[in-house]
Amino acid sequence: MKDHMSSQFDAELNVIRARLLEMGGKVEIMIANSMRSLVERDSALAEQTIAFDREINAMEIEIDEKCLYLLARRQPAARDLRFVTLALKIVTDLERIGDQCASIAKHALELNREAQLKPYIDLPRMADVVAGAVREALDAFVRGDAPTAARVCREDRFVDELNEQLQRELLTFMMEDPATVERAMRINSISKYLERIADHATNIAEMVIFLVEGKDIRHSKV
Amino acid sequence: MKDHMSSQFDAELNVIRARLLEMGGKVEIMIANSMRSLVERDSALAEQTIAFDREINAMEIEIDEKCLYLLARRQPAARDLRFVTLALKIVTDLERIGDQCASIAKHALELNREAQLKPYIDLPRMADVVAGAVREALDAFVRGDAPTAARVCREDRFVDELNEQLQRELLTFMMEDPATVERAMRINSISKYLERIADHATNIAEMVIFLVEGKDIRHSKV
Repeated sequence: MKDHMSSQFDAELNVIRARLLEMGGKVEIMIANSMRSLVERDSALAEQTIAFDREINAMEIEIDEKCLYLLARRQPAARDLRFVTLALKIVTDLERIGDQCASIAKHALELNREAQLKPYIDLPRMADVVAGAVREALDAFVRGDAPTAARVCREDRFVDELNEQLQRELLTFMMEDPATVERAMRINSISKYLERIADHATNIAEMVIFLVEGKDIRHSKV
Repeated sequence: MKDHMSSQFDAELNVIRARLLEMGGKVEIMIANSMRSLVERDSALAEQTIAFDREINAMEIEIDEKCLYLLARRQPAARDLRFVTLALKIVTDLERIGDQCASIAKHALELNREAQLKPYIDLPRMADVVAGAVREALDAFVRGDAPTAARVCREDRFVDELNEQLQRELLTFMMEDPATVERAMRINSISKYLERIADHATNIAEMVIFLVEGKDIRHSKV
């Protein structure tokens, strides 16, 4: 009976793991598509990305319910308990990343209606780094891999640097030609959304280190 | 024995409730102080607000642990289980609001070093509304009060409007005088941080409605 229970329990944990990875994969696609809708000036893709956010939202509710069910019926202890409670937090991060991708796509729609201010070079690079960080943070969670999580935390600095570099460039544009201000502000918003997504990845990674090593580095940088 | 267990359980739930409200109160003070540090050009207060974020971070860890303990030892069911798992999510929102207040204070430090671009009228109004939303969302959670939570969700629009109004004003400044661009961008960032804090309050409120009414309105607006 005990064995039966625990194999069922493991199966349920594995479903949560798999669905979280799936949700992460969809979020990654949203990051890539929101960026493509800007770079390729593809407003249909932007609309599609905004609509796709619904799927992410539905997955949040579904994974939440699975976690609650597990907590109520299986009463996990120790490490499994931490895993499930972290899954509850991580799913919220993923859902908000979806919101931020939708916001990027909304700004892309607006920018696509006007002449392009400049070639988009830094933003797609940032988006790649950020999508990679989300993937690595989730992989680290599912595998309980603290070194990978630590790398995600370190690499957040790279996104901040790209963001600052872009901000300086936009400042120059705006100061030299007031006609660029509105578009530059929109591009700046997109850069900030990417930075926020990277922050979510870092938050996930910090929680993973806590899960694996039992030590809380979440606030060690403060 | 059962009664003893359940009264102990209730006492533990009440401690979580009380600590969450306390954390919310501290976060409200951080919102007010980060704004005062800007409006009154009080850089010492800005530094203090940045340092205070540590206390918020420590409270997150402490409340998380209390929730985990309760889940592990008391195995709450049904509504209590939802309460505890929501507390775990809400504490993360509160912690991130603390981060955003620290970011506002950092921008205040920079703005305080330069001539003031304009009188700050909209930002303190926004900060008041936002702090009120955080307080109401938490009160709604602790009391299981869905109508109050619903009001928080509706009022989020007001913050968005103030933010848009300020953005338009800043655009005008920047287009008329390039020398204002850098300061206007910083003010714009502060406005966005306040908007993010309001989003956290809305997220909390949506979860409360879910807790109370069992229906998920989290994504009904999409």
